Amino acid sequence: MTYCVGLKVQSGLVMLSDTRTNAGVDHILCFPKMFTWQVPGDRAVCVMCAGNLSITQGIIAAVKDAIRRAEAGEDVETILNAATLYRVAELFGGHMRDKQRAHREALEEINAAADATLLVAGQRRGGSHRLFMIYSAGNFIEAIDDTPFFQIGEHKYGKPILARVITPETPLAVAVKAALVSMDSTIRSNISVGMPLDLATLPVNEFQFALRRRLASDDEEFRRISRSWSEALRFAFNRVSGLSEGSVSVDKQGD
Amino acid sequence: MTYCVGLKVQSGLVMLSDTRTNAGVDHILCFPKMFTWQVPGDRAVCVMCAGNLSITQGIIAAVKDAIRRAEAGEDVETILNAATLYRVAELFGGHMRDKQRAHREALEEINAAADATLLVAGQRRGGSHRLFMIYSAGNFIEAIDDTPFFQIGEHKYGKPILARVITPETPLAVAVKAALVSMDSTIRSNISVGMPLDLATLPVNEFQFALRRRLASDDEEFRRISRSWSEALRFAFNRVSGLSEGSVSVDKQGD
Repeated sequence: MTYCVGLKVQSGLVMLSDTRTNAGVDHILCFPKMFTWQVPGDRAVCVMCAGNLSITQGIIAAVKDAIRRAEAGEDVETILNAATLYRVAELFGGHMRDKQRAHREALEEINAAADATLLVAGQRRGGSHRLFMIYSAGNFIEAIDDTPFFQIGEHKYGKPILARVITPETPLAVAVKAALVSMDSTIRSNISVGMPLDLATLPVNEFQFALRRRLASDDEEFRRISRSWSEALRFAFNRVSGLSEGSVSVDKQGD
Repeated sequence: MTYCVGLKVQSGLVMLSDTRTNAGVDHILCFPKMFTWQVPGDRAVCVMCAGNLSITQGIIAAVKDAIRRAEAGEDVETILNAATLYRVAELFGGHMRDKQRAHREALEEINAAADATLLVAGQRRGGSHRLFMIYSAGNFIEAIDDTPFFQIGEHKYGKPILARVITPETPLAVAVKAALVSMDSTIRSNISVGMPLDLATLPVNEFQFALRRRLASDDEEFRRISRSWSEALRFAFNRVSGLSEGSVSVDKQGD
């Protein structure tokens, strides 16, 4: 399984992914699910992947291949020369469609899942910062102020805290903290999501990542956040007073 | 969908369920998923249901029918005369198997899901208080000190808070508060889980429910808990300090 979360706030973008991949509990591997590209001063693009690993690796390979060919002088549209971020999302969507068409039928013949999803985030000079979620069919949706974050993979455990604290006005550093807390809740609840983590932040109108960091399993800062969130959560729970003793009623049998 | 949670702490049992049933978003209905029986001084039994509603209603009907026949003088084993709570769980498991055998094949022919799960909790005089989770095959597992709660239905959103605060030593009133907070997180995250709620508590060695209460959607106490939990959670989140500014690094492209 996987957990990736992308947040789009007014001050920029935050992307956080785990790195655990499993094909059964006795076949757990570490694969990066976050990939970043930047042309400093012009654009920065980040993608995170969930779902069938051969499909998503194939997409990344195709993206890289196009960039290599463009660098070698070929006239190829790539995520680094596309006119808009929207067009970048379309390119990822096109690669997704290609890989699905190449592999889906054979995968389904052996009852394997071909589904995959991507989160694509970035900004190019002249455009606003954007966050897209790309589905298996290559279609996609975009994060807006009413929905300032997207999650892919094992998204449920980590949703409640994001839903409560993230608004478009959330400062970037707070959005990072929320992503880490959300990841911590997920890792504690689902053994198929695991350290290390990949984290990237892209402040608005900087066109290059301010942070691109791997948090290892012994990362002291993540451990501190995890521990202090546990303590703060218990403290918060204790602050809430429970049900009063009144209104006790016992119904008839079988109701 | 459904969310039901059962907690077994040293001081007793807590059971909480929502009441929303849906067959598609345009077919949302209110059905109770919690059923209680008691013979005060002798035993109290509570069951909560998730999954295919026709299957679970069939199980409850069979349980009630057996009780009716026993009351009419027939020699029938029922959940109210079974020798042990373990035997009560076996009776529920047997009804589950019967209903699955009767309906599963026809349901699967039309690609409908037959799966169902039950939480059975209770205590009889002479035995300890127990909590069981019964699967579609009629087999079951029992909650122990290491795993003092079971959830069925839409369980993920509400798990993190339970995992952090519930231990066998948790007082009953605190376990009730935890169940309500867990339900609140679930209702906020999944529209297929909804008010009103059914709540029951069974203090150890009392053999009758201390509380059997329906919380309507305008329940003032639940609203207060929901609101104060939101505030406490935001306060807790603000108490945690985020990532420090150090260790910033930007990798090469495509990594």
